[in-house]
Amino acid sequence: MQATLEQAQSIADKIEARAYDGISTKKILQMIFLYMKKYRPAIGYQIDLRQAIAMLRSKPDFEIFVAKLFEALGYKVETNLIIQGKCVEHEIDVVARKDSEIILVEVKHHVNHHTYSGLDVFLQLNSTLEDLKEGYESGKNNFKFTKAILICNTKVSEHAKRYALCKGLEFIAWKFPPEKGLERIIEEYKLYPITFLRGIEREEVYKLADAGIVTIKQLLDDIEKISRKTGMNKSRVLELQKAAKIVLGIRI
Amino acid sequence: MQATLEQAQSIADKIEARAYDGISTKKILQMIFLYMKKYRPAIGYQIDLRQAIAMLRSKPDFEIFVAKLFEALGYKVETNLIIQGKCVEHEIDVVARKDSEIILVEVKHHVNHHTYSGLDVFLQLNSTLEDLKEGYESGKNNFKFTKAILICNTKVSEHAKRYALCKGLEFIAWKFPPEKGLERIIEEYKLYPITFLRGIEREEVYKLADAGIVTIKQLLDDIEKISRKTGMNKSRVLELQKAAKIVLGIRI
Repeated sequence: MQATLEQAQSIADKIEARAYDGISTKKILQMIFLYMKKYRPAIGYQIDLRQAIAMLRSKPDFEIFVAKLFEALGYKVETNLIIQGKCVEHEIDVVARKDSEIILVEVKHHVNHHTYSGLDVFLQLNSTLEDLKEGYESGKNNFKFTKAILICNTKVSEHAKRYALCKGLEFIAWKFPPEKGLERIIEEYKLYPITFLRGIEREEVYKLADAGIVTIKQLLDDIEKISRKTGMNKSRVLELQKAAKIVLGIRI
Repeated sequence: MQATLEQAQSIADKIEARAYDGISTKKILQMIFLYMKKYRPAIGYQIDLRQAIAMLRSKPDFEIFVAKLFEALGYKVETNLIIQGKCVEHEIDVVARKDSEIILVEVKHHVNHHTYSGLDVFLQLNSTLEDLKEGYESGKNNFKFTKAILICNTKVSEHAKRYALCKGLEFIAWKFPPEKGLERIIEEYKLYPITFLRGIEREEVYKLADAGIVTIKQLLDDIEKISRKTGMNKSRVLELQKAAKIVLGIRI
């Protein structure tokens, strides 16, 4: 919900004037939403970003979403690989390459966005990376991984953060790193998930995601083509495309 | 359910004579139980061992149970430790020592005993052991671990087994290793869990386990003392002690 400082101040003043002791966070959010709508019409077409991401299915939706994110960052991606390590084969969600960099990407998606990703996730990632590196050295795979990154839609526990930093395991989580968290990357590249569109039905999300369409940017594609890939009727695809354009700030 | 070969043959003959097409496994087990009771009266006082172990709570019951198991094997045990690794502190279920051996014991208990312990458990254990070893080398802890063992009440997936064997991580699971699985150790040392007693109430299990009593051998202790530690009345403790003696084959 980008707003100018002036707009934010004006909204804060209005809410302060109407707030009362014991007002719920939900009520405050509703009020913010109401006032924001006046300043940015797109707000009327979108829901809370964190909630929107939680509404994606873990597989395949969020995995495809993460692949799109790395593509936006300039990486070439491969998804859903089985890679042989020194000891065993591993299911790898995403491999991202740029120049000499080859990143092992582990994707964690929680439907409850208040959950924390804990130490266990990084302990696993550390052993997986180790086995894959040893597998490369012994000629069992061709992936010369340079690092591993966890991408998750929740926060990461302090315990897990300390381990990750110590082991050189990177992660992009909700509001972390502070200047480049998941929400910042999404805003910067306008990589909003399709669930961000207000009023989109769960059934429609599944049809679109099953056809590999997980960001609203992808809804700008040819209507005929989207309709054919998803089995949705063209008039509905047109509606969603219009909403997508408004959210993306594209003149219609 | 130990039986002589002759007894087993006799029971098999009887069941064969009464079995019919489409008979359920449950029905067959019931029949085995019925006939076994004739040969070994203790059977009347006990339930299926695998089910009994699943009925323990994961914490603290099964953890205490595993500690008792290592004690029976001649180890000195410490439970529920927080040990500092090179990167972070780790919660360790059991540490078992004998001579120069110091074992990191990871305990996994599934209420559903049909679940498999998978690769993730061993990936975590590998990283935990690594961090603790590096912690010891850098003077952050005093535990010079010589190996790690997973103890679980279920089977282990083939994928996980291959990784564990390759990394030198040991495990004792249901019927694994074939000659020394969890069920064999329990039978050999008569380390039956209190839930093995037919008719013991869930509430009673909790009271006993909260007082550190998780094996029926521990029920042979002084009745007064057990009653005081658990808040259960003496007559009920006496009943359980009698049943325990029958199962353990002790003359009463």
